[in-house]
Amino acid sequence: MFLAIIFALSFLFSSSNAADFCVGDLNGPQGPAGYSCKKPETVTVNDFVYSGLGATGNTSNIIKAAVTPAFSAQFPGVNGLGISMARLDLATGGVIPMHTHPGASEVLVVVQGTICAGFISSANKVYFKSLNKGDIMVFPQGLLHFQINAGKTQALAFVSFSSPSPGLQILDFALFGDDLPTDIIQETTFLDVAQIKKLKGVLGGSG
Amino acid sequence: MFLAIIFALSFLFSSSNAADFCVGDLNGPQGPAGYSCKKPETVTVNDFVYSGLGATGNTSNIIKAAVTPAFSAQFPGVNGLGISMARLDLATGGVIPMHTHPGASEVLVVVQGTICAGFISSANKVYFKSLNKGDIMVFPQGLLHFQINAGKTQALAFVSFSSPSPGLQILDFALFGDDLPTDIIQETTFLDVAQIKKLKGVLGGSG
Amino acid sequence: MFLAIIFALSFLFSSSNAADFCVGDLNGPQGPAGYSCKKPETVTVNDFVYSGLGATGNTSNIIKAAVTPAFSAQFPGVNGLGISMARLDLATGGVIPMHTHPGASEVLVVVQGTICAGFISSANKVYFKSLNKGDIMVFPQGLLHFQINAGKTQALAFVSFSSPSPGLQILDFALFGDDLPTDIIQETTFLDVAQIKKLKGVLGGSG
Amino acid sequence: MFLAIIFALSFLFSSSNAADFCVGDLNGPQGPAGYSCKKPETVTVNDFVYSGLGATGNTSNIIKAAVTPAFSAQFPGVNGLGISMARLDLATGGVIPMHTHPGASEVLVVVQGTICAGFISSANKVYFKSLNKGDIMVFPQGLLHFQINAGKTQALAFVSFSSPSPGLQILDFALFGDDLPTDIIQETTFLDVAQIKKLKGVLGGSG
Amino acid sequence: MFLAIIFALSFLFSSSNAADFCVGDLNGPQGPAGYSCKKPETVTVNDFVYSGLGATGNTSNIIKAAVTPAFSAQFPGVNGLGISMARLDLATGGVIPMHTHPGASEVLVVVQGTICAGFISSANKVYFKSLNKGDIMVFPQGLLHFQINAGKTQALAFVSFSSPSPGLQILDFALFGDDLPTDIIQETTFLDVAQIKKLKGVLGGSG
Amino acid sequence: MFLAIIFALSFLFSSSNAADFCVGDLNGPQGPAGYSCKKPETVTVNDFVYSGLGATGNTSNIIKAAVTPAFSAQFPGVNGLGISMARLDLATGGVIPMHTHPGASEVLVVVQGTICAGFISSANKVYFKSLNKGDIMVFPQGLLHFQINAGKTQALAFVSFSSPSPGLQILDFALFGDDLPTDIIQETTFLDVAQIKKLKGVLGGSG
Repeated sequence: MFLAIIFALSFLFSSSNAADFCVGDLNGPQGPAGYSCKKPETVTVNDFVYSGLGATGNTSNIIKAAVTPAFSAQFPGVNGLGISMARLDLATGGVIPMHTHPGASEVLVVVQGTICAGFISSANKVYFKSLNKGDIMVFPQGLLHFQINAGKTQALAFVSFSSPSPGLQILDFALFGDDLPTDIIQETTFLDVAQIKKLKGVLGGSG
Repeated sequence: MFLAIIFALSFLFSSSNAADFCVGDLNGPQGPAGYSCKKPETVTVNDFVYSGLGATGNTSNIIKAAVTPAFSAQFPGVNGLGISMARLDLATGGVIPMHTHPGASEVLVVVQGTICAGFISSANKVYFKSLNKGDIMVFPQGLLHFQINAGKTQALAFVSFSSPSPGLQILDFALFGDDLPTDIIQETTFLDVAQIKKLKGVLGGSG
Repeated sequence: MFLAIIFALSFLFSSSNAADFCVGDLNGPQGPAGYSCKKPETVTVNDFVYSGLGATGNTSNIIKAAVTPAFSAQFPGVNGLGISMARLDLATGGVIPMHTHPGASEVLVVVQGTICAGFISSANKVYFKSLNKGDIMVFPQGLLHFQINAGKTQALAFVSFSSPSPGLQILDFALFGDDLPTDIIQETTFLDVAQIKKLKGVLGGSG
Repeated sequence: MFLAIIFALSFLFSSSNAADFCVGDLNGPQGPAGYSCKKPETVTVNDFVYSGLGATGNTSNIIKAAVTPAFSAQFPGVNGLGISMARLDLATGGVIPMHTHPGASEVLVVVQGTICAGFISSANKVYFKSLNKGDIMVFPQGLLHFQINAGKTQALAFVSFSSPSPGLQILDFALFGDDLPTDIIQETTFLDVAQIKKLKGVLGGSG
Repeated sequence: MFLAIIFALSFLFSSSNAADFCVGDLNGPQGPAGYSCKKPETVTVNDFVYSGLGATGNTSNIIKAAVTPAFSAQFPGVNGLGISMARLDLATGGVIPMHTHPGASEVLVVVQGTICAGFISSANKVYFKSLNKGDIMVFPQGLLHFQINAGKTQALAFVSFSSPSPGLQILDFALFGDDLPTDIIQETTFLDVAQIKKLKGVLGGSG
Repeated sequence: MFLAIIFALSFLFSSSNAADFCVGDLNGPQGPAGYSCKKPETVTVNDFVYSGLGATGNTSNIIKAAVTPAFSAQFPGVNGLGISMARLDLATGGVIPMHTHPGASEVLVVVQGTICAGFISSANKVYFKSLNKGDIMVFPQGLLHFQINAGKTQALAFVSFSSPSPGLQILDFALFGDDLPTDIIQETTFLDVAQIKKLKGVLGGSG
């Protein structure tokens, strides 16, 4: 008799789950709202779980830091859900250089160590503070911000974004890591040509 | 001479910062999009930093667990920014009971211990898995989900939400912790009256 | 001469109708914003009209009630338009059990009979009332709610949703109609194992 | 002992309910997202229920029809929830004249009688059909549409909108019921001056 | 050594650019949020630049005016970016007839000449004014509006929209340029049949 | 008799106009969605028209350029309408320095002269081109971009934004025009201290 409920309602259950989630099919067509959805019947719990943030990022580099993203491109389970994450590892002296996320606000939680984090508003006001374990800080969408290991030990933070695909524009790479002509950089940033050429050399830029 | 730039552009800087953020004024009028904004000139870095998630929540309770929110009501810096956080502490045997967030998707990252987490879709499919340190899991908006300490030690997780005010509806409190009449509960959940009355007794409900 | 207008403007008309609507192509790729659009030239008025809510749902079941949806999966004309509908039939004694719509708010209008409807807020406050013919009630997004035939005759209501794909999570099916393990249910809901097993038996659940 | 849960979680419940709803305070400041919220502690079930659509609208007028709205201005419970309703009464021969809703899509359900309803797309394609009891039809946002009683009896329909404040622009009132100068109307619609003056006379317009 | 940064961060750069833009692939599947995205590696600066608004539109027609759109269908670079443009040319005596954009608000800037522009609100209040070179005017979403050359020279304006696909419904074409039956027009607009037939004749309508 | 329509419908007209627009009250409370609305009865056409972009900006400064905004703070008529504008004047040799708009995409139309405009994507790809009169270019939200007078005459462009309050972060002012400490700039941008101090000197920064 209760089976009658099952019969009566079961078509609802199969048809309505599109509303719940849209695990990204990285090979399907992509639109302004994100990736196409995997067929619901092929989705498993593993689509909603990601282990790529479990290991310490490789900080043996010049910034002594690493950013490991879990955006929809790495973690398709967040596609369409308005949220994503990344892991920040900062060795002693490590720095996440000045950058923006064009499409999302960010919240950072310090899990280990001490991090000096800050952002600059449109009104050119600087907001920065030294954060300890358990502190959280929010960085409003699209503003320049940075994180610096302010302690004497390895630091670890997790950051979350208000978009599954927040984007990441690192200032130095945007200016010096591509083929943006030196004279355009000079004109639009007032930096000296020598400074520009020096950083282009280090960051692999041309032009 | 460069001062001329400052002069020419400075009015922009003072007028355009409304776009950047809207730190909540908890005493001002509230609208569908959130709290009113604090006057920008009174905003400091401390509005963007919250230390309330730094301490272990009190898990000396029946669920052996604690949820500590940093929603816009606790952390007004996230008002209007589409994101918020909370801290989950689970003592050995601890459980965050079955609940929903009516207004947000959630991503959880395990910082310590092992957590069995899961959700149930509209299609009545269950997705759950044991998560280890560093694993992340996403819970799509509005679906029933839970977290259980699956290890033999204290567990800690941080969760982020795709809204500054995600809401939290804990199933047992919704059903048994208020004055929802027993007969309505019985009719709409098929639970036995004895079961309902037992849980109402424990959770402080009436009716 | 007026033909010149037609000539001048006609290309607008053929290119701009993408903005008007996006009738769902249930066989095309699906994205976070909904189904792909049918080619506009194949769309007819019948794509915007649905007759599936015209007949009384089959209430010969244990809940003596039926929900007939017109979501984008059944009525592709609403795809992308932010709205959908469903029909509720409640025989005498009929009940739409406790449920949520993870992705939409709902408005109900009573067309026949008397319906006791209610919802529970995140603050565990219960809002319920007996509604007569012509009364409307709104259920905010994602909250647990229910409808009970409170009269002595068949009742009929139409409900509308703020999404073409609101989802539907019926509490009992979510808990007892799938393979969610009994011990997880017990831990996360505080229900007695006997109660869980009884309802799993009735609703076809396992685990 | 369970009281400990209540203690531990109760602050959540009081602070998080802003996410659930925002019943409009018609006297408070209004913003782009809608009315300010009533204080949650003053909200009762009556804020979520509206009886104003229960009575037949007065169709003793030239259009032999009546529109009775339940927008946020009449039914503040829908404020911020992305949905609203209205009631359409059409006496025999009644007509809801050509109109648009600038801010919402609409779904109509016929409850009594037969209604010929239609809309015109940006591509100047006309979609109209005779709808019987139980039929539903969707009208995409912002497009000109109309409803005509196509039967020999009184007709009744309920319409829902994808916004709590959809707006309503009735073509004839927009053109002829205000002080839009006759020459501007003539130039922008190609209507004859005599026709314009005739309708201005009937609809109370000047200019 | 800096190469290590490049190595460490480069995978971010290739995977995260979906957030930046979604140049429309006019041949791919279309969804409610717009066109599918061209493959990022095939995108060049020419996808973001459009020269189609550079030439004066052909105003040798009865309205002595021309609208040249740069919506996503003509300028796929704006797909998904929430903005688009069009060019308005008005010869002496030219008129952009009464129309709406169902899906966007509009801002107009006068570049040459004098334009009388106006709109009508839902409250049937008329807002119109003569605009000179450099003046801007905003037309809220979905409302009837018009532009008339109010000077003695050619006029030029650029208009921007809050959507890549704002739609365009020209009142006269909607009513008289298609096969909407005369009796329906008469019933829903109160226009005289003779007037309707006259304009249908001029605008190429039938029915 | 037609007066009956007026009577029957007039209450709609007075109550529904909130949906049309929300002219900003710069002195009222502000929320995440923008300014509070002016009382509709005090709104006139002048609230929707702005003449502040009519005059050439003062380019007698070091960048030989001027940005004149018509954001909601200057032009409250756009509040809540998802769009705004600005005027760019570039004298010969003028430059709008590298900047972002954290909250909006932008479309630029060249009205006079030749402008070299470009942006840099998250993937560190540079898109720039010389634009002539009538050319338009789109700059996706939040990305670094610039405009340079590439001709031998004064240049003029109008830019539109997909938000009434797009924000404006000029890179040099963000880095060198405030009190961001030199060592933080050095660590997060890899610029030489001498370069930083030089630009701080010119732009009025301290720290």
